[in-house]
Amino acid sequence: MATEAATENATYEEFLQKVKRISNVQNAAGILGWDQEVMMPEGGTPARSQQRSALSAIAHDLLTDDEMGDYLDDLESRELDDEQAAVVREVRRDYERATRVPGELVEEISRTTSEALPKWKEAKAEDDFSIFAPTLEKLVEQKREYAEHIDPDSDPYEVLFADYEPYLGIETAEETLARLRDELVPLIESVRESDVELATPFEGTYDTETQEELSRDVLDTLGYDWNRGRLDTAPHPFSSGTTFDARVTTRFDEEDPLGALMSTIHEFGHATYTQGLPDEHYGTPLGQSRDLTAHESQSRIWENHVGRSRAFWERFLPAVKERFPDAEGASVEDVYEAANRVYEDNLIRVEADELTYHMHIVVRFEIEKALIRGEIEVEDVAELWNDKYEEYLGIRPDTDAEGCLQDIHWSHGSFGYFPTYSLGSVLAAQLYDSAEEDIPDLEEQIREGEFDDFHNWLTANVHRYGCLYTTDELIEQATGEEFTADYFVEYVNEKYGALYDL
Amino acid sequence: MATEAATENATYEEFLQKVKRISNVQNAAGILGWDQEVMMPEGGTPARSQQRSALSAIAHDLLTDDEMGDYLDDLESRELDDEQAAVVREVRRDYERATRVPGELVEEISRTTSEALPKWKEAKAEDDFSIFAPTLEKLVEQKREYAEHIDPDSDPYEVLFADYEPYLGIETAEETLARLRDELVPLIESVRESDVELATPFEGTYDTETQEELSRDVLDTLGYDWNRGRLDTAPHPFSSGTTFDARVTTRFDEEDPLGALMSTIHEFGHATYTQGLPDEHYGTPLGQSRDLTAHESQSRIWENHVGRSRAFWERFLPAVKERFPDAEGASVEDVYEAANRVYEDNLIRVEADELTYHMHIVVRFEIEKALIRGEIEVEDVAELWNDKYEEYLGIRPDTDAEGCLQDIHWSHGSFGYFPTYSLGSVLAAQLYDSAEEDIPDLEEQIREGEFDDFHNWLTANVHRYGCLYTTDELIEQATGEEFTADYFVEYVNEKYGALYDL
Repeated sequence: MATEAATENATYEEFLQKVKRISNVQNAAGILGWDQEVMMPEGGTPARSQQRSALSAIAHDLLTDDEMGDYLDDLESRELDDEQAAVVREVRRDYERATRVPGELVEEISRTTSEALPKWKEAKAEDDFSIFAPTLEKLVEQKREYAEHIDPDSDPYEVLFADYEPYLGIETAEETLARLRDELVPLIESVRESDVELATPFEGTYDTETQEELSRDVLDTLGYDWNRGRLDTAPHPFSSGTTFDARVTTRFDEEDPLGALMSTIHEFGHATYTQGLPDEHYGTPLGQSRDLTAHESQSRIWENHVGRSRAFWERFLPAVKERFPDAEGASVEDVYEAANRVYEDNLIRVEADELTYHMHIVVRFEIEKALIRGEIEVEDVAELWNDKYEEYLGIRPDTDAEGCLQDIHWSHGSFGYFPTYSLGSVLAAQLYDSAEEDIPDLEEQIREGEFDDFHNWLTANVHRYGCLYTTDELIEQATGEEFTADYFVEYVNEKYGALYDL
Repeated sequence: MATEAATENATYEEFLQKVKRISNVQNAAGILGWDQEVMMPEGGTPARSQQRSALSAIAHDLLTDDEMGDYLDDLESRELDDEQAAVVREVRRDYERATRVPGELVEEISRTTSEALPKWKEAKAEDDFSIFAPTLEKLVEQKREYAEHIDPDSDPYEVLFADYEPYLGIETAEETLARLRDELVPLIESVRESDVELATPFEGTYDTETQEELSRDVLDTLGYDWNRGRLDTAPHPFSSGTTFDARVTTRFDEEDPLGALMSTIHEFGHATYTQGLPDEHYGTPLGQSRDLTAHESQSRIWENHVGRSRAFWERFLPAVKERFPDAEGASVEDVYEAANRVYEDNLIRVEADELTYHMHIVVRFEIEKALIRGEIEVEDVAELWNDKYEEYLGIRPDTDAEGCLQDIHWSHGSFGYFPTYSLGSVLAAQLYDSAEEDIPDLEEQIREGEFDDFHNWLTANVHRYGCLYTTDELIEQATGEEFTADYFVEYVNEKYGALYDL
């Protein structure tokens, strides 16, 4: 018996070393990606592309080699503890997805996305969807084929969605987004009809160097661990890294200092999840964050529930006034209103408010789902997009550039990604409600700039588990309930009802 | 016959893909290294170490697998063109070095160097060589063992030296450094006895932000390709990257603006070699720079022969005065003197002038050679070091920190690296002489800030070949002669004779 256990441990340890190597290659690729967005001179692209595909091919080879399959088979036949079982479960999932898709198809998709990116850029610049359409069609076909290889018996969109959110299920996404549509369309309509005029305290221009100092202030205030991170600028803000080094990027717009702060707080939320993962499990699924829904919940909980709250601005407004003495006249209520204003005429997802945002997602979700399922044709996308904007948001894009060409995701072949943005926001509301129950004076603490309890709550209930639990288990563990949109719906109705006097 | 040629090409192409993959992994590791020195937050070390060892192990695995051996055997039995033959020659060399050394020894050395670094730091901080000595002893033994695996019949120091300079041969290093010692010891002695007082135009302090702008000015003036590079600061300046993205780092000292400029120009020289490699051979030896001697020749040719020349300062002094109006009183002759002053009492290699520098190298070369050959004991190093400084430079370190603990190289296990610094300077003088022959008005062009002809000469004679030629072939090709110290000796005698009125 002792010998058997010893063999088992030895096998598990060898397996874990392989897993860690893959993870180190992926994390190295992550640094190359960060560098490419933030530091790399333009001329570096040809070499960087080759470096990144080499690392990606190597990670794929390491994951899919026979030895890995043997380890998994062997370990699954043994008695494992919870942590070991979780690691085996997560690696098995990656292994299956990777081995089922033929290498040639992976390469084909990779080639098509390489072609798609410049086509999408050109189409957007020329404001002409027909430039991008043929490549999009090719991508839709190839991704459908990809899904069929993974699971020929399932709805292909469901399979693609599971690449980004493996544990909540497509029904959850469909129900949640349908509910958001049903709840938010009338709510947005009421806001549109309301006579309330919200304050606009930040007119004028705000120099970006001082804005950057202010972003550092906000990260200081929220308790970002600078010893394990840094702040830079990027045209499309993101955060990336590992628990030891989780970096934030943001962007600055001279006319929108609040937007930059919200972007910084959002990325801080992502980074603080990453920083909260357990050091000792670095390189294994136990030291990796859960998928996109959980990750987005962490960015949104900080951005929306902290960063857009009155309590936070009571704390932080003096810092803004110190950096920008011209903002002296702004009150907490002014800034609260500005941070929560609904942009009724905004066509662009990344510039949307907390409310209309989800209608942007619903449009994309409905269209990409129908595309992958073969229910609509690529050539109909632009028109359909505009119709849906009119239906859900009461506005109609005049151009493709401001319509279906605004987002880069489809050119990456990322179908099934968009809904996780909304699921994340919904989960943020659910988690925040639980945190408030456990920390009754949370609002008061935010007002005082005390974030330790909230940090600790998130770490204890979400971050420190890595991928020990599946996402649905994690949510039940943290909130005592299944994933639900109830809290989000309540939250937006209450908040926007009060703001717009509905 | 056609079929055979086709097979041959197919084999070569497959082989080349493997070579490129290895090279992409190494270049990715290079980015991780750059990031670690320049960008990474301190807390990132544990993850970064693992990422770098994973990439290094993967590159080693790819290089040493049986398939690579088969390709090499196969290709060596065929008729290859010059470029193919050069690629096979270079990969064969790496392959042999990598396969002959057992993996366990590589790991042992890696572990010892990991231990060595903090020990060396501690020893330096405590000014106590005995703290570092036991680890150094272990490293010396392990590197000797490493050399024996590569070639049991050769002098182990020769084998180690060939890791850094494979084609010039240890005799060249020995003869050259002996000649430098014989020529420079009396020359330095004469300088010491000279009554000439050189100008010190840059007293006072110079803020480092403006110094950075000035470093950007100097890179602009010299023609650095910013589209394929960037400038940052690092505690130990270096340059790294590929032809598509060759980055420069430098450092600033408030009291030494000239030192920062020289460091920037030095690293520019390295980076401009890298940028000059042929794009189309990226990822193969034909797109890689030659070894350390050739690389150092490119940094030194720009630093010493351009950056320390009167002609350059006639061009560039106005830019300094524009950035630092306090320097208004400095004449070209003042700056020329300051840039070429011999620091008779300087104990530190990295702060040395162009003349005494090589005596610092001679001391290290003689000691490390004797150590590896087993002619001296580690415990004697500190004393021997001080004796040699007294003999060659007429100064004696009071402390180990300013003596044998000043450089990091041995803690990396880099024995055989130091001499390439001197060989590079010597080669720079030889190349510069040839460039002057081909561009008769070179000095005039430098005075005018016209660097195109000189750039083109270096590219045409050195950079564009990558590793097509071995270093000795490259030198003959570029200068019409074998490697020789004649030009360097003539250059320093003439320059310092005039400066110090000897």
